[in-house]
Amino acid sequence: MSEKKRILSGMRPTGPLHLGHYFGVIANWLKLQEEYDCFFFVADWHALTTEYADPTRTKGFVPGLIKDWIAAGLDPDKCVIFQQSMVKEHAELFLHLSMITPVGWLERCPTYKEQKTQLVQKDLNTFGFLGYPVLMASDILMYKPCAVPVGIDQLPHLELTREIARRFNHLHDTQLFPEPADLLTEDPKLPGLDGRKMSKSYGNSIMLSEPIEDIMPKIRGMKTDENRLRKTDPGDPDICNLYPYHKLMTDAAKLPDIQQGCREASWGCVDCKKVLMESMEAFLTPFHERRAACTDERVQEILEAGNRKAHEFASKTMDEIRTLLNFDF
Amino acid sequence: MSEKKRILSGMRPTGPLHLGHYFGVIANWLKLQEEYDCFFFVADWHALTTEYADPTRTKGFVPGLIKDWIAAGLDPDKCVIFQQSMVKEHAELFLHLSMITPVGWLERCPTYKEQKTQLVQKDLNTFGFLGYPVLMASDILMYKPCAVPVGIDQLPHLELTREIARRFNHLHDTQLFPEPADLLTEDPKLPGLDGRKMSKSYGNSIMLSEPIEDIMPKIRGMKTDENRLRKTDPGDPDICNLYPYHKLMTDAAKLPDIQQGCREASWGCVDCKKVLMESMEAFLTPFHERRAACTDERVQEILEAGNRKAHEFASKTMDEIRTLLNFDF
Repeated sequence: MSEKKRILSGMRPTGPLHLGHYFGVIANWLKLQEEYDCFFFVADWHALTTEYADPTRTKGFVPGLIKDWIAAGLDPDKCVIFQQSMVKEHAELFLHLSMITPVGWLERCPTYKEQKTQLVQKDLNTFGFLGYPVLMASDILMYKPCAVPVGIDQLPHLELTREIARRFNHLHDTQLFPEPADLLTEDPKLPGLDGRKMSKSYGNSIMLSEPIEDIMPKIRGMKTDENRLRKTDPGDPDICNLYPYHKLMTDAAKLPDIQQGCREASWGCVDCKKVLMESMEAFLTPFHERRAACTDERVQEILEAGNRKAHEFASKTMDEIRTLLNFDF
Repeated sequence: MSEKKRILSGMRPTGPLHLGHYFGVIANWLKLQEEYDCFFFVADWHALTTEYADPTRTKGFVPGLIKDWIAAGLDPDKCVIFQQSMVKEHAELFLHLSMITPVGWLERCPTYKEQKTQLVQKDLNTFGFLGYPVLMASDILMYKPCAVPVGIDQLPHLELTREIARRFNHLHDTQLFPEPADLLTEDPKLPGLDGRKMSKSYGNSIMLSEPIEDIMPKIRGMKTDENRLRKTDPGDPDICNLYPYHKLMTDAAKLPDIQQGCREASWGCVDCKKVLMESMEAFLTPFHERRAACTDERVQEILEAGNRKAHEFASKTMDEIRTLLNFDF
């Protein structure tokens, strides 16, 4: 083990990643892999909490997710990339933490009620869905990370993880589980094509792996500053839905001109979009090249190596727990 | 695999077995091991649902439980004797079945409310305690038994197991899990020393492994027919707390005399108890001898062999489930 501090984060394999994932999560991971011992995992068992009625689709999304990660710049030599369901210890720790977690903590979890309301087309009154934060606590605590990168909406889950760690430590008079801090990531930096949060279910996304030619019409159709009705009306990049894309993908040297052109109405949104198309292509082309170079065999190699490292760590933690609980038969 | 049908049953390792366990459960197991492929298991993870705050005692009870089983006549050549926590697949199946089990089914389970009320000294508002029937369903369904021997109080749990099996089969369009029937065992045949149900927590038990000299004073103090105040009063074996002991342990040829002596007041309860002491000694001595012969090493051997067989079966079932759910990575 190196001297670096450890962090852990994961994603469900539910489909290809979009630009919102990249700028909201992955870009942060790329920085973190330089500073920390990182464990990044495919949360495939987690996907079952909502996809239990049709779990067979999950498998198909796993290689694509790994390819998206690798193409984005995750480096398997710097971080451990693994798959939850291939490290069976997670199920055993889930069982143990289930025993000590009060039902009330889970019922009061704000995201529990929210998700049940939002995903009305699915029957989420299941024991597994209620226990989602217990499974998440197992995934996290298994690797004893000092911190977990989270969005603000996941803070209640992480607080629950800390409460479960405290309860375990208190009940068994131990310090086995450090309480992971939150590395709060900023709010989504990139809106969707229509100005709402970028989300696959809103149909307002640009996928990282999407062919450039499919993206161009999407950019053409993007919402811009609604107050700018004619090309001769001055616009405001600060409220325009397009400008955040420039900030993230266009050469910074060009930004003053883009701002000026908009505010002075010296160019139109169509011109502005043409520049974005170039920036987008320049941004995504190396991604697409790296993604094409990442074969299924390479994905297999990465996961096998990562699963082995994760399993090594997880089995040590479970040994400690079994010894502590006197379940080391 | 033999052609015999399969059954499964288990016990929590919470202390030495008493005569009530023997005549209520084990005597039935002894018959079953002749007719079925039997899986009998030590439910040590289950013990955590109520003992989570002090799990360290559990380990000490495991070898004693196996010794009690072997001394009573369970034959490791005829049945598979294993320990739940040593077959990790149970935790994985618990995770999977959690995902499909509605919380309402668990909340409505009659024993859930009952136990919470009865065991008030323990905080049982935990997620694991609520999920007890899901863990039980995992233990059972893993081995696809045709039936499970249960007492009448466990019928709701077994019905829940069948409902979970049906839901799994329905969701995934499979017949993977057969619905286990109930082999209903009769009501407890042997009352406790005081006439209530024999239970360790009532302090009215005779342990199978208890030294004969410790048992004698207990028999002397046993409650008999309360209406028989003097030796000259006639008694009624049908309502006497002692007579069921004779029925189970005294030579059947002697029973008519015992009945007559009581009804005609030709002998007293003290005489009646002396006969029982002899019967008890004759009954328990071979048990004690077999128990003494069953060393810790022998227990280890039995469990290692049984765990291996159980694991072999369980890993096949889990492979089938993973293939069905497309989680066979």
